[in-house]
Amino acid sequence: MIIVLKPHTSSGEAREFVRVLEKQSVSIDFSEGAAQIVLGLVGDTAHIDEEALAAHHLVEKVIRVQEPYKRANRLFHPDDTIITIPSKGGPAGVIGGKRLGIIAGPCSVESREQILSLAESVRKAGAGFLRGGAFKPRTSPYSFQGMGPEGLDLLLQAKKETGLPVVTELMDIHQLELFEDVDVIQVGARNMQNFSLLRELGLCRRPVLLKRGLSSTMTELLMAAEYIMAGGNDDVILCERGIRSYDTFTRNVLDLAIIPALKRKTHLPVIVDPSHATGVSWMVPQMSKAAIAAGADGLIIEVHNDPEHALCDGEQSLTPAVFAELMPRLRKYAELEGKKI
Amino acid sequence: MIIVLKPHTSSGEAREFVRVLEKQSVSIDFSEGAAQIVLGLVGDTAHIDEEALAAHHLVEKVIRVQEPYKRANRLFHPDDTIITIPSKGGPAGVIGGKRLGIIAGPCSVESREQILSLAESVRKAGAGFLRGGAFKPRTSPYSFQGMGPEGLDLLLQAKKETGLPVVTELMDIHQLELFEDVDVIQVGARNMQNFSLLRELGLCRRPVLLKRGLSSTMTELLMAAEYIMAGGNDDVILCERGIRSYDTFTRNVLDLAIIPALKRKTHLPVIVDPSHATGVSWMVPQMSKAAIAAGADGLIIEVHNDPEHALCDGEQSLTPAVFAELMPRLRKYAELEGKKI
Amino acid sequence: MIIVLKPHTSSGEAREFVRVLEKQSVSIDFSEGAAQIVLGLVGDTAHIDEEALAAHHLVEKVIRVQEPYKRANRLFHPDDTIITIPSKGGPAGVIGGKRLGIIAGPCSVESREQILSLAESVRKAGAGFLRGGAFKPRTSPYSFQGMGPEGLDLLLQAKKETGLPVVTELMDIHQLELFEDVDVIQVGARNMQNFSLLRELGLCRRPVLLKRGLSSTMTELLMAAEYIMAGGNDDVILCERGIRSYDTFTRNVLDLAIIPALKRKTHLPVIVDPSHATGVSWMVPQMSKAAIAAGADGLIIEVHNDPEHALCDGEQSLTPAVFAELMPRLRKYAELEGKKI
Amino acid sequence: MIIVLKPHTSSGEAREFVRVLEKQSVSIDFSEGAAQIVLGLVGDTAHIDEEALAAHHLVEKVIRVQEPYKRANRLFHPDDTIITIPSKGGPAGVIGGKRLGIIAGPCSVESREQILSLAESVRKAGAGFLRGGAFKPRTSPYSFQGMGPEGLDLLLQAKKETGLPVVTELMDIHQLELFEDVDVIQVGARNMQNFSLLRELGLCRRPVLLKRGLSSTMTELLMAAEYIMAGGNDDVILCERGIRSYDTFTRNVLDLAIIPALKRKTHLPVIVDPSHATGVSWMVPQMSKAAIAAGADGLIIEVHNDPEHALCDGEQSLTPAVFAELMPRLRKYAELEGKKI
Repeated sequence: MIIVLKPHTSSGEAREFVRVLEKQSVSIDFSEGAAQIVLGLVGDTAHIDEEALAAHHLVEKVIRVQEPYKRANRLFHPDDTIITIPSKGGPAGVIGGKRLGIIAGPCSVESREQILSLAESVRKAGAGFLRGGAFKPRTSPYSFQGMGPEGLDLLLQAKKETGLPVVTELMDIHQLELFEDVDVIQVGARNMQNFSLLRELGLCRRPVLLKRGLSSTMTELLMAAEYIMAGGNDDVILCERGIRSYDTFTRNVLDLAIIPALKRKTHLPVIVDPSHATGVSWMVPQMSKAAIAAGADGLIIEVHNDPEHALCDGEQSLTPAVFAELMPRLRKYAELEGKKI
Repeated sequence: MIIVLKPHTSSGEAREFVRVLEKQSVSIDFSEGAAQIVLGLVGDTAHIDEEALAAHHLVEKVIRVQEPYKRANRLFHPDDTIITIPSKGGPAGVIGGKRLGIIAGPCSVESREQILSLAESVRKAGAGFLRGGAFKPRTSPYSFQGMGPEGLDLLLQAKKETGLPVVTELMDIHQLELFEDVDVIQVGARNMQNFSLLRELGLCRRPVLLKRGLSSTMTELLMAAEYIMAGGNDDVILCERGIRSYDTFTRNVLDLAIIPALKRKTHLPVIVDPSHATGVSWMVPQMSKAAIAAGADGLIIEVHNDPEHALCDGEQSLTPAVFAELMPRLRKYAELEGKKI
Repeated sequence: MIIVLKPHTSSGEAREFVRVLEKQSVSIDFSEGAAQIVLGLVGDTAHIDEEALAAHHLVEKVIRVQEPYKRANRLFHPDDTIITIPSKGGPAGVIGGKRLGIIAGPCSVESREQILSLAESVRKAGAGFLRGGAFKPRTSPYSFQGMGPEGLDLLLQAKKETGLPVVTELMDIHQLELFEDVDVIQVGARNMQNFSLLRELGLCRRPVLLKRGLSSTMTELLMAAEYIMAGGNDDVILCERGIRSYDTFTRNVLDLAIIPALKRKTHLPVIVDPSHATGVSWMVPQMSKAAIAAGADGLIIEVHNDPEHALCDGEQSLTPAVFAELMPRLRKYAELEGKKI
Repeated sequence: MIIVLKPHTSSGEAREFVRVLEKQSVSIDFSEGAAQIVLGLVGDTAHIDEEALAAHHLVEKVIRVQEPYKRANRLFHPDDTIITIPSKGGPAGVIGGKRLGIIAGPCSVESREQILSLAESVRKAGAGFLRGGAFKPRTSPYSFQGMGPEGLDLLLQAKKETGLPVVTELMDIHQLELFEDVDVIQVGARNMQNFSLLRELGLCRRPVLLKRGLSSTMTELLMAAEYIMAGGNDDVILCERGIRSYDTFTRNVLDLAIIPALKRKTHLPVIVDPSHATGVSWMVPQMSKAAIAAGADGLIIEVHNDPEHALCDGEQSLTPAVFAELMPRLRKYAELEGKKI
């Protein structure tokens, strides 16, 4: 961390300020130039509060050089984190490294028939994971909020029948006991900075799929992962799902450049949700290919047997047939990237 | 709700679609023009899922005419909601109507001495409420997270000594039992769409100060209020605290035009947080005046005895002296708006 | 300007880099700490290209301490710039200092009758300037593009009859010869970075009203002013007119906090356009008051005798009657700010 | 266009309003429902001003169903526009249809040696077009503004020597006479809504590469193209170059989903500028591949022999060696899309 002091700060004032800083267990690199004094903080600055420093009357600017995350930082963990879900009777579900994980399924679990048939369809087409929401965060209190525990139960039956590991969203820490057999716990975009929830997930021993918030920065996404990892849970999958912007031709702006940016900063796997990002199913194939070309470690795609009658987000769901056609094309793009679906 | 069907939809197809829609207990106004069929949904459309409709193969566009919120809607509750906190020994704290409520205090409770002295200062200067955080949502897990239950206790002591009603943030529904003597429960911007939390607050009988999310729309803010109100708690105070944008000269962009917009759409009081919006204390006086001139029902202002050593957000805090000077000036602006502080 | 070199840069490499930098006629403050070398560039760094520096293989970060603008910089010109338009037969039009300038009139000049009657109305109500577009930048080539030279002529007739100085938009440098009697030349938001146009306006001796671009930063706005001032024309009026954001309840987000921010950085006057910012007339009074309370030096307000039949932007125009009612209220807010309309 | 009238509008009022609308040479589809009257405007509504309509006191909402652009609209021109630049001695430069056009070269022409050597390098690597700026739009008046006419001359020499068609930016219509031998005229992002410039380019018979504005919507981009096409010039190449957002890890957010969206709405070719979008060279290869996978018709990539000493935008330029390595990889992605570079 570099602190530029205001011009006309005297050497004495600066030295006194240095003594205050040293109490925060960093050492200070003091550089007195002709015009300005610049302090370099050496050591672990992740715990130092930039904004508190900036409020000091001697400080002109504070520049963070070191990233504020540690466990999520590739600098300290150069090797890619690979998430592997052992599976009974089937191949393991893997995301990261040379394996491109495909998570597919409906937005919401709606009935036993629906989830079992969709699970079978996506498994056949080659998906590695089944998704399906039982607890749904909805903008309106009057919209369908998911089937709840019953939906979760149906999802777990589908897991049993197909052998596919399952991914589903947790909205509230109270629900955690119901999630014992869930393989990957999803944190939705609107909960990305629900710090209480993140902290609790840090204590649990299950991979967490963490969606980027609606307008969160890359650093905020990594700090949210850091909350989980600080508790001891290192299995975090980051998910780009579009950010809010001013244009309305897609629901969100899919920010694919965050993939190479994240891959440089962190060892965690990065997947993409083209369904929620664009909000329209006909864009999903094109943006899925683009995500792979941009270096994604996986995709989470909505597939629904009857999008027109879906209880939520039908507009963005592929039919099983379209999904089955898409998969072989995605494999070719994965191959060009040296990866295997 | 207006549904424009695709050109070339036959009368027969449209009639069949109407029968499906009628099952959602709305009546349909069928308008067949030369070029296109337009359906008007009459009745309570708040429970109808726009996106599900938009996924239907006959539908070209869906346009919501009626707002999706009901209890928060001024149309159904024309009179301003006024929040009154009875106070022992002092005047009641009031927000809404002809009363402009001023909430002041430190970002975080840091010590007994600090909170008692600040409470006394802001009370003397004329604030109607004391704010102070005990549980702090911080971007980094390594930053100071608030004093927790002990901080809450100190805040309540300050309430006792000064008679000021207190406002403090709840991050997690588990904390609710500690909040029994808290007068106004704050929901932070990052939790604005923590729907589990909102639902629980709907069941509690305490006013809720709901901060606008970092990039939430006006409708999303009102829908978040609707979550609370749907549970039976009608005492919601909306708070504009700046939205995320591309420029960096302020921390957020303070969107004062949402005040007249909200006042037209809802009967709920609207207050402004100039401290978090701008992130710099020297802008707070100017933006406080502007907020009053734009029609705000109140302000929530950070005041800290020693901003340079504040454990969080010092850069945006006023000193008690500056706050005391500001208050008489704010009163003059309030008077021009026909309001009383 | 502070340049942080990458860790592990050797002293020798750094010294060599310093020699390269010194050719750009700045002197270098060399600070070698234990961990990192930091260079401080002393002197006029406005001409130094940050991005070119950032491309250098030794450079980790470049931090601009000094602002990149000079003539627009309050540091070098502490006194407020005041724009005065001498007027025959009437009081001078003034913007800046203790005078709050009100510019009013229709979006477009539509007919002789219209502009003369409106000019008379706004003059009576106390406006200091008449606005009216003859050349209109329209999103669609099929929309009304303004009356052109004939419209300009009518505007100048209105100036003659009322004595009000006039403000009108120049879209193309070819039109400049027609603008000889125009008092203030407006540059629209979409042309804020039309650098050829700005450069030409730097050579002309007329005040320029420069509108902030749709998503321009404060620094970009000041650099656009600097383009004009670098040519020798110091009379630039900055205008906040709302920025693009994700919400749609107003056309743009009126960013009033840019007023105190600009007043600190520059000596140039800052006015606000509440009509284009909000896009709806019923918000204009409230946001006009807020703009004054936030420290604006003036307002530019659309007034139209018949908003429903306006050829453009009727939705955001006040009627002359509403404008006349508004003016005395604005005067009260101006007084609180120690200013006179 | 659908106009929803306010509730309680009488039949008589509505009929009168219809008569006014009919004067705009559209026919009206009148639909009187139980609750609300809805008007459908049939015919060419591109010239109708939505905002003017919205200002009418009877109007609740105006919904555009038909797009406001005509010549750029795929509805009326289903076949892809293909831009072909005949070339002496070499293969023609083609963008669109089954041909993926690669435009490469330096940000600025800096010297004869530089541009000739780069032209030769990119030609060998397989680029179809040479880019190079002679007139540069720079945020600061103190930055290098391009070599001007001399730079243009050097670019044309490079064209002569290599046979590559050239693309260069026009900032001002005065420069047009110098551009006689330029093959593709570029309009920069900051000039996307410089309507005077667009109109003049409509009269010229040269393809125009139109960059999306910093925060322009898809419709605004297409309306800017429509300005050019309305003048009779149908050869417009659209270019996505990133949009402004709140995060800073890339200079702009590359919005690749606009490619499928545009391909559906318009017949014009769409290319991508990964260099300006990301602002950092190491992201360019990944985002180039992603752009092709998303369906782009071409790429415009900055290549500089000595990025560290480039006079502008060095940070985002590839070296000729990296570019030469990238090309065969891009060909593989193009093949998967059924295209040829």
